[in-house]
This record gives sequence, C-alpha cells and structure tokens, in this order.
Amino acid sequence: MSWLPSLETTSPEEGFDLAIKLARMAVKITQPDDAARSKMRPDYAHNADSLTMASHVVATHFQTVAQANNYWR
Amino acid sequence: MSWLPSLETTSPEEGFDLAIKLARMAVKITQPDDAARSKMRPDYAHNADSLTMASHVVATHFQTVAQANNYWR
Amino acid sequence: MSWLPSLETTSPEEGFDLAIKLARMAVKITQPDDAARSKMRPDYAHNADSLTMASHVVATHFQTVAQANNYWR
Amino acid sequence: MSWLPSLETTSPEEGFDLAIKLARMAVKITQPDDAARSKMRPDYAHNADSLTMASHVVATHFQTVAQANNYWR
Amino acid sequence: MSWLPSLETTSPEEGFDLAIKLARMAVKITQPDDAARSKMRPDYAHNADSLTMASHVVATHFQTVAQANNYWR
Amino acid sequence: MSWLPSLETTSPEEGFDLAIKLARMAVKITQPDDAARSKMRPDYAHNADSLTMASHVVATHFQTVAQANNYWR
Repeated sequence: MSWLPSLETTSPEEGFDLAIKLARMAVKITQPDDAARSKMRPDYAHNADSLTMASHVVATHFQTVAQANNYWR
Repeated sequence: MSWLPSLETTSPEEGFDLAIKLARMAVKITQPDDAARSKMRPDYAHNADSLTMASHVVATHFQTVAQANNYWR
Repeated sequence: MSWLPSLETTSPEEGFDLAIKLARMAVKITQPDDAARSKMRPDYAHNADSLTMASHVVATHFQTVAQANNYWR
Repeated sequence: MSWLPSLETTSPEEGFDLAIKLARMAVKITQPDDAARSKMRPDYAHNADSLTMASHVVATHFQTVAQANNYWR
Repeated sequence: MSWLPSLETTSPEEGFDLAIKLARMAVKITQPDDAARSKMRPDYAHNADSLTMASHVVATHFQTVAQANNYWR
Repeated sequence: MSWLPSLETTSPEEGFDLAIKLARMAVKITQPDDAARSKMRPDYAHNADSLTMASHVVATHFQTVAQANNYWR
C-alpha cells in the first residue's frame, strides 16, 4: 500500500500531521539509513534554527494539504 | 478537543495569531520536551536572523490562513 | 483597536508597507521586549544576508496582501 | 525523450517522487559532473539542516505537482 | 508620486525588473542609510550564497507580479 | 530583443529550463561582472547546501512558469 494514498484528511489537525509526514518523508527518501537519521536527531532537536527550518517545510506542505482539502470549509 | 478545529477566524489579527500557533506547533511536535524548548529560547529570541526565520514561517502559514478565510473580505 | 483590521489597502505601495508591518509584527510577538529588539538592530541592519532574509519575509507577506487586494487591478 | 514529459502522475506518491526528481535535476543541471555530486553526498546526507533544506525544495515542487494534478481529487 | 503605482507591466521582462525593485525596496526601507547599504555591497556581490538568497527573493516577488499580470498571456 | 519575451513554453522541460534561466538572471542583474560570477562558481558548484539553495530558487520560478502554462495540461 502507498504511504501517501491521498491528500484528503478529515480535519485540519490531520492535515497538519500529514504535512509533517511529507516533510519527514523527503528526508527519509534522501537519507534512507535509519541509524544515520537517528544520529542526527540531537543536532536539530536542540537547535532553535534547525527546528524553525523544519517548521518552514511543514508550513509549505500544509499550504498544499490545506488547498487539497479546500481548507476544510 | 483538537488544537486545530478550523482555519476560520473572525478577523485578520486572529488569523495572524493562528499562523503563529501553527509555526510553533510544528516545533512542538518535532521537539515535544518543554524543558528542551525553553532552554533554546534565549538563543533565538536574541538573534535577529533566528527571529527573521521564525517570521518567515509565520508568513507562510498566514498565506494559508488568509486564503482559508478568503482574506476576510 | 486591532493592529490589523483588514488586509485591504488603497494602493500597492500601502500594501507593501503592510507586508513590512506583518513581517515585523511576527518578530515583535516572538520577542516582545523592545530593548532586546533594539539591541539586535545593528546586527541585521549592517549585514547583507540578514537584510535579504528580511526582504524575503516581506515578499511572502506581499503575495498575501496583493492577492487580498486582487492586485489593485 | 524528455526527462520531464508531463507533470501528471497517477497518484500522490508518484507526484512526490516527481517533486524529488525536480529538486535533484536542478542540482544536476547546475553541477553536471557526477563525481563532484557524489563527493558531496556524505556532506549533506549526514547533516540535519542540509536534509531539511533539501526537503524544503521538494515541498515547493510538490505544491506545483499537486496543483498540476488537481490534488488527485 | 508613489514608487509603486501599479503591479502591471507591459512585458515579462519589465515584470522581472519590478520584482528586483520590490526585493531592493524592502532592504532600503529596513536600512535607509545609502552609505550603509553601499558598504555591504561587496559582501554579497562576491558571495554566491548571498546572490542566491537575493535571487530567491526576486523569484517570490516575480510570482506576485506575474500573477498580477495574468502571466502576460 | 527581450531576454524574456514570454513565460509560455512548449513543454514542461522547456519550462524547467526557463525557471533555471530566471534564477540565473536575477544573479546576473545583481552581479553583472562576468569574471566575478565565474570566480564564485567553484564555491557553490562544490557545496551541497549552495546547490540546494539554488535548486530552491528554481523551484519557486518553476511554480510561476508552470502556472503560466496551465501546467502544460
């Protein structure tokens, strides 16, 4: 089964979770080694700018997901 | 109850506050440890570039929220 | 009264000023201490990359404001 | 045959893969030397911020691809 | 007279020039001292990343200008 | 003749090439000295983050070009 069967979600919060998933999947596809990714976690999880950068990627994906769901109106 | 029940707000200012909330929630979900986040606060709150980066994330979310509210027209 | 009663402006130039205001307000809300912000000013006002980063945030908000005003057509 | 015959894909997941391809092609066209690109891989594949930056480019392209496919609705 | 009377231009090339102007005006409004800006010029004009960052701001404004002109279709 | 007579292209691949051209032109207009630009090339062509940043600018322009061409549907 696909990890991304659809961009539709039942609520804005689920849409936000999907945006986070999309941001992480691009990282995972670029660096598929789980151990290598885990090793980097302390670097960015304790660095304010790294977290802000990650939050920006989520924001960009959330635009897409929100539009796909017609803003859950 | 969901932390994000809707993207609709009654005014542009509330929409801006929601954009700030969305930017922070992505950080909180990535680094859920409150103490770890508090420890980083002085780093970015006193660094102009960090604040500009955070402002950029807010701007991206504000695009989404403004569109969801049809620009409060 | 709200600091952001509306996204409508009477001209593109006023829209640009509003975009600058939006970029600054996100910084102000994140770092509400006026003295702390003033102290950082020389850092970014004399650094080309900091100014470019700030200009990027304005550009993102200007997209929103221009769209809200139907590009002042 | 073109490396980019169309922006249409049959599913969101294929659309995501296309977004990754678009992000990589811009790098490849700017630095066409395969050896030079391979040499840089360890640099960014083990650096959290580099991966986040790459994920942001994918997010930007995914917006385009999702729109081209009317969000696979 | 306003420095930005309209977002309409007669051609894509003029639209691109307007995008460059918008990117520069945000810098000028943030740092209005001409001498301070001139002093920074060698820093970014000889730094590849600075130029790429500036090019990104232009790209964001060009989206707005192109949309305002209905892509000069 | 204009270097940018139109945003219309006959295919997505040509649209991608146009996006790359737009990204480079903003750099060229900011730093018109060919020798200065050539001197910087090794800096960014062998730096993964510089290439990712350049790829992001292309992605932003590609959004514009794709929209101008109605996604070549």
